[in-house]
Amino acid sequence: MRKIGLWLLAIILAGSTLCFAQDPGGAETLAANPQAPIDYVWILVCGFLVFFMQAGFAMVEAGFCRAKNATNLMAKNAIDFVVASLIFMAFGFAFMMGKDYMGIIGTSGWFLHGDSYDVGKYLLFFWQLVFAGTAATIVSGAVAERLKFKAYFLYSLAVSAIVYPIYGHWVWGGGWLAKIPFGLGHIDFAGSGVVHTIGGFVGLAGAIVLGPRFGKFGKDGKPKAIPGHSMVLAALGTFILWFGWFGFNPGSTFSAHQLRIAVIAVNTNLAAAAGAAVAILLVFAKTKKWDVGMMLNGCLAGLVAITAPCAWVEAWAAVVIGAIAGVLVVLSVYFWENRGVDDPVGAVSVHGINGFWGLISVGLFADGTYGLGTTDGPLVTGLFYGGGAGQLIAQVIGALVCAAWAFGLGLIIFKSLDKWFGIRVLPHEEIKGLDIDEHGTPAYPNFYTFNN
Amino acid sequence: MRKIGLWLLAIILAGSTLCFAQDPGGAETLAANPQAPIDYVWILVCGFLVFFMQAGFAMVEAGFCRAKNATNLMAKNAIDFVVASLIFMAFGFAFMMGKDYMGIIGTSGWFLHGDSYDVGKYLLFFWQLVFAGTAATIVSGAVAERLKFKAYFLYSLAVSAIVYPIYGHWVWGGGWLAKIPFGLGHIDFAGSGVVHTIGGFVGLAGAIVLGPRFGKFGKDGKPKAIPGHSMVLAALGTFILWFGWFGFNPGSTFSAHQLRIAVIAVNTNLAAAAGAAVAILLVFAKTKKWDVGMMLNGCLAGLVAITAPCAWVEAWAAVVIGAIAGVLVVLSVYFWENRGVDDPVGAVSVHGINGFWGLISVGLFADGTYGLGTTDGPLVTGLFYGGGAGQLIAQVIGALVCAAWAFGLGLIIFKSLDKWFGIRVLPHEEIKGLDIDEHGTPAYPNFYTFNN
Amino acid sequence: MRKIGLWLLAIILAGSTLCFAQDPGGAETLAANPQAPIDYVWILVCGFLVFFMQAGFAMVEAGFCRAKNATNLMAKNAIDFVVASLIFMAFGFAFMMGKDYMGIIGTSGWFLHGDSYDVGKYLLFFWQLVFAGTAATIVSGAVAERLKFKAYFLYSLAVSAIVYPIYGHWVWGGGWLAKIPFGLGHIDFAGSGVVHTIGGFVGLAGAIVLGPRFGKFGKDGKPKAIPGHSMVLAALGTFILWFGWFGFNPGSTFSAHQLRIAVIAVNTNLAAAAGAAVAILLVFAKTKKWDVGMMLNGCLAGLVAITAPCAWVEAWAAVVIGAIAGVLVVLSVYFWENRGVDDPVGAVSVHGINGFWGLISVGLFADGTYGLGTTDGPLVTGLFYGGGAGQLIAQVIGALVCAAWAFGLGLIIFKSLDKWFGIRVLPHEEIKGLDIDEHGTPAYPNFYTFNN
Repeated sequence: MRKIGLWLLAIILAGSTLCFAQDPGGAETLAANPQAPIDYVWILVCGFLVFFMQAGFAMVEAGFCRAKNATNLMAKNAIDFVVASLIFMAFGFAFMMGKDYMGIIGTSGWFLHGDSYDVGKYLLFFWQLVFAGTAATIVSGAVAERLKFKAYFLYSLAVSAIVYPIYGHWVWGGGWLAKIPFGLGHIDFAGSGVVHTIGGFVGLAGAIVLGPRFGKFGKDGKPKAIPGHSMVLAALGTFILWFGWFGFNPGSTFSAHQLRIAVIAVNTNLAAAAGAAVAILLVFAKTKKWDVGMMLNGCLAGLVAITAPCAWVEAWAAVVIGAIAGVLVVLSVYFWENRGVDDPVGAVSVHGINGFWGLISVGLFADGTYGLGTTDGPLVTGLFYGGGAGQLIAQVIGALVCAAWAFGLGLIIFKSLDKWFGIRVLPHEEIKGLDIDEHGTPAYPNFYTFNN
Repeated sequence: MRKIGLWLLAIILAGSTLCFAQDPGGAETLAANPQAPIDYVWILVCGFLVFFMQAGFAMVEAGFCRAKNATNLMAKNAIDFVVASLIFMAFGFAFMMGKDYMGIIGTSGWFLHGDSYDVGKYLLFFWQLVFAGTAATIVSGAVAERLKFKAYFLYSLAVSAIVYPIYGHWVWGGGWLAKIPFGLGHIDFAGSGVVHTIGGFVGLAGAIVLGPRFGKFGKDGKPKAIPGHSMVLAALGTFILWFGWFGFNPGSTFSAHQLRIAVIAVNTNLAAAAGAAVAILLVFAKTKKWDVGMMLNGCLAGLVAITAPCAWVEAWAAVVIGAIAGVLVVLSVYFWENRGVDDPVGAVSVHGINGFWGLISVGLFADGTYGLGTTDGPLVTGLFYGGGAGQLIAQVIGALVCAAWAFGLGLIIFKSLDKWFGIRVLPHEEIKGLDIDEHGTPAYPNFYTFNN
Repeated sequence: MRKIGLWLLAIILAGSTLCFAQDPGGAETLAANPQAPIDYVWILVCGFLVFFMQAGFAMVEAGFCRAKNATNLMAKNAIDFVVASLIFMAFGFAFMMGKDYMGIIGTSGWFLHGDSYDVGKYLLFFWQLVFAGTAATIVSGAVAERLKFKAYFLYSLAVSAIVYPIYGHWVWGGGWLAKIPFGLGHIDFAGSGVVHTIGGFVGLAGAIVLGPRFGKFGKDGKPKAIPGHSMVLAALGTFILWFGWFGFNPGSTFSAHQLRIAVIAVNTNLAAAAGAAVAILLVFAKTKKWDVGMMLNGCLAGLVAITAPCAWVEAWAAVVIGAIAGVLVVLSVYFWENRGVDDPVGAVSVHGINGFWGLISVGLFADGTYGLGTTDGPLVTGLFYGGGAGQLIAQVIGALVCAAWAFGLGLIIFKSLDKWFGIRVLPHEEIKGLDIDEHGTPAYPNFYTFNN
């Protein structure tokens, strides 16, 4: 729970309210807390790793989609972080981390100006921004190969300014969800819900509003595989995401003085491995083929699932949580396909469903060895460790709220844009690939390619 | 300004001149400064990120050039860092950071031997080396698809031994430019000038000496687009560079005890986003296409521009600086094309022109909240914050000197090499692609490719 | 020598045996050692970089092999780390770092459970795991394009559970090799032997048991070049590995308080550069072509060789060690090819032979400025610095034991698996490429490819 780390930071810095209010140079903050440099280094380096996940998402989506849309996917995976950077600075950060208004929304810190011109505030902004950018970019996979670039541009604005920061406020910014009277309130250490369920369920809304790609379903309604154009890019992207997740989860202590970071790193890795192993074995049992795409998605599913509980569970539990994620992602991919939902890269299954599972798992496996970003104060204990059902209830409530908020707002956004100017490209553009008409440049002009 | 960080380090370590003179094991340095580990970790990790930019440049250049020259581009992007590592260790580092001679050149520390066998000296060398390697590699984009590998090999030697380190000495090594009597002297926090303007203007000289590629200009002299062979590689490279820049700029404090690193990271990111957004919107306004290549170059232009001012400006100013960079890169690409200069990846526009702009911007936007690597001592204040024209004049002088030095020496180097053995490959080699005759291995032997 | 870092850590933490025994939250560990956060951050970040080498190996191997096996290579490069993560957690870590039994094997710490649920233990596990995963993944290059996926799956189990951890115990876990009565015992700072020689010689065994690929040798027995399908991927992978090596070597101090990390980083970089430069020049002298593949392998060879001596030598010696590695890798590639051994990516030459050379070089070039992870206590001194032959003998013994252990067990593993179910794919599967029959998905379905 990052908010706890922030409270600690606030308390540490609170020796001088003045210096916390505005210290753009950093000297007063350092004087007040000579241990700050190690925390700053930790948070920044982890934040850089989270930023690098943008490259991972871009490569995974390119790999799992067709060559004729690769330029478009690069455009979308870049523009969402570009938009997030600017809009989250202007509005999103204030909505998420500003002065709380009735538990619902933050109301200060616009444009990082005034009192926000402070090394501690900028640090917090940087950290929250790379998370906002991750939530935004998840969606591009679900709506790939048929959404207009202009619609994606505008969607990015809405998610970075409204959907992500307001829900983020409820969980990490002092809002109501963190305070519901079950367990220790709804908790989400590094964002299985705040980032991944949000991104996944907005993506589900987008995929539903758009409808499936041409050729995804036969006349009998049965789904057909549309293979992506580069398994190498998909694997590279997955490795980059796995790498970036070591910033995402351990960095969410928002402090290097929480040595629990070592446990978090190990748990993150084990869940990824378990998810990958289970997914590939499960599909092998069914098809007798070693399905690499499903292994990569199993790996990502494990990472998504462990994101909420990573700080509160033991290694073996991380393996179990990841293994269940590996099962869920396989079932979920088949589930949506069989219901006519076309999610080209499996974003809904990986991020939406397993983000949900990650939130629930906290209420089951939290072992009472660690608390809200500290070992002082109350410890988080789940059902299997004698903590009763309180935390589990808080987790279920939060997961449901998260999915409903993201799916509902996602429907509103995509339907509104669709009414406004039509969000889907024209049929002949889709068949030709989006690269030519939308961007004027095919991704691979030196290669002979199939236009499938 | 890295040199300030170094002075601080020197002062901190100066408790025992002996231990600073030579402490290869590091125990004495640690005893003299128990806080050193966090600074070492910060500088090394940031240096690793800067190193990784080599991969970014390689991917961007490969992506923006044709498949038939991809092996050659890999060769060049690897050999320049290889050569830089060896030559900078032998000579360049001594020229740049050695004992100053009349403000012009350093004169000690050859081969990292003798007194240089010291943990602090090695740390400084590592940091300077990755910067030297970046300056060297920028040029390969401007001279791509027609320069002999042998010429590139020798050019790399000259830049790493002479061009970069001597100019670097003037700004960061105690030389004359840092001491000109305007403002606080010419300043360049992380190297908009020292690295990027140098690289960009040497590249301009190379592109002019070489002349344009076959087919770049029609019989009427009008430029034609020669699309690169992989937008995915170009985007991947840009993400890697963006990631690496988080080492480049924040690491240039050369100290983790400057908490200003948080502000620097935020500014770096915002300028990249603003440059990308402006560039893609500008081209869209003209062509009605969402031009991904220009967005990527706009992003890089913003990063180049913010490199000099990153430590001295506020977030909104970073957005403005980046946005102007986004305009400049588009105008500059058209400007050079229309004057018959063929710069395949836009290196001159991205690095040369926007490095120049970055230096100037310090004199305009520096807001007086931060000084020369510290908040003690004089603060940097530009024209818009009541600092008068002094700093702006220092910046203009430095930028002009930088561009003239790089362009002039670049001309001398490439013309000398050209007289010696002819630096351009033969016409039939260029048309076939450099991979076969120069390297014996096409990059993609398993694919059917166009030989355009 | 990581074990020394661990001993130091143990001593530091030993103020309270109880807290060391089990501190899952980390508060007691922090109280006992307020300087721990910087060490944790250093080790974790370096560990993340080592993890990222998995992506580097995947890209190098894909680049050096054919398009028709690219999916298979992604599968193998992912599954080995997946398997290593799970098995090393269950058994390997206990065998390697558990309570020593007669110098041969560790016997405690199964499943990271019980007393191992401790922030310091988890940190050590994470570090050792990413090394185990590296050793495992090296082999996939040597057996590429013909080994069944199932066999690779099972081989990964054996290496991660047995081959790597037991040998690792002998050198880093308190076992017998570190205690042989020559010099300071057999030493290997970051694993030229433990990781690379192990991986390379297991790979040699695999390549021999499998036999060469179809078409590798003509009817006259002369080797033919089988070009890989992407020089860009090979170069990208090499850059990623180089980047990751900055975690691998400097992080092996297992402490940020060893400022020698700066020297290690510089040495690592110089050896890579020297290896690359020598390899490309050597092949150019023979063929008049600038061989990029050999330059990349020369770079990796330099990195492998400097891995053992990186902490004990000066910059010039790192250049010499890397340069010799550049010669060795070229000679070794020709040597194995001319003896009928088909190692598609040169893994045996890069990792096996140069790991061996790296171990030996310690006994020659160690300059007596640094000891076993500290400057207190005995310093490491080689033959050229007046240390006598003792250390050299220890290194030769260790290198021979390492190669014999890896090659012997490798033969047993691959021969046993071969007897069990036949480890080589069927001829028609090999000719078609492994992607279709093993995985059901070609890597590049949108491109026209040669099936060479």
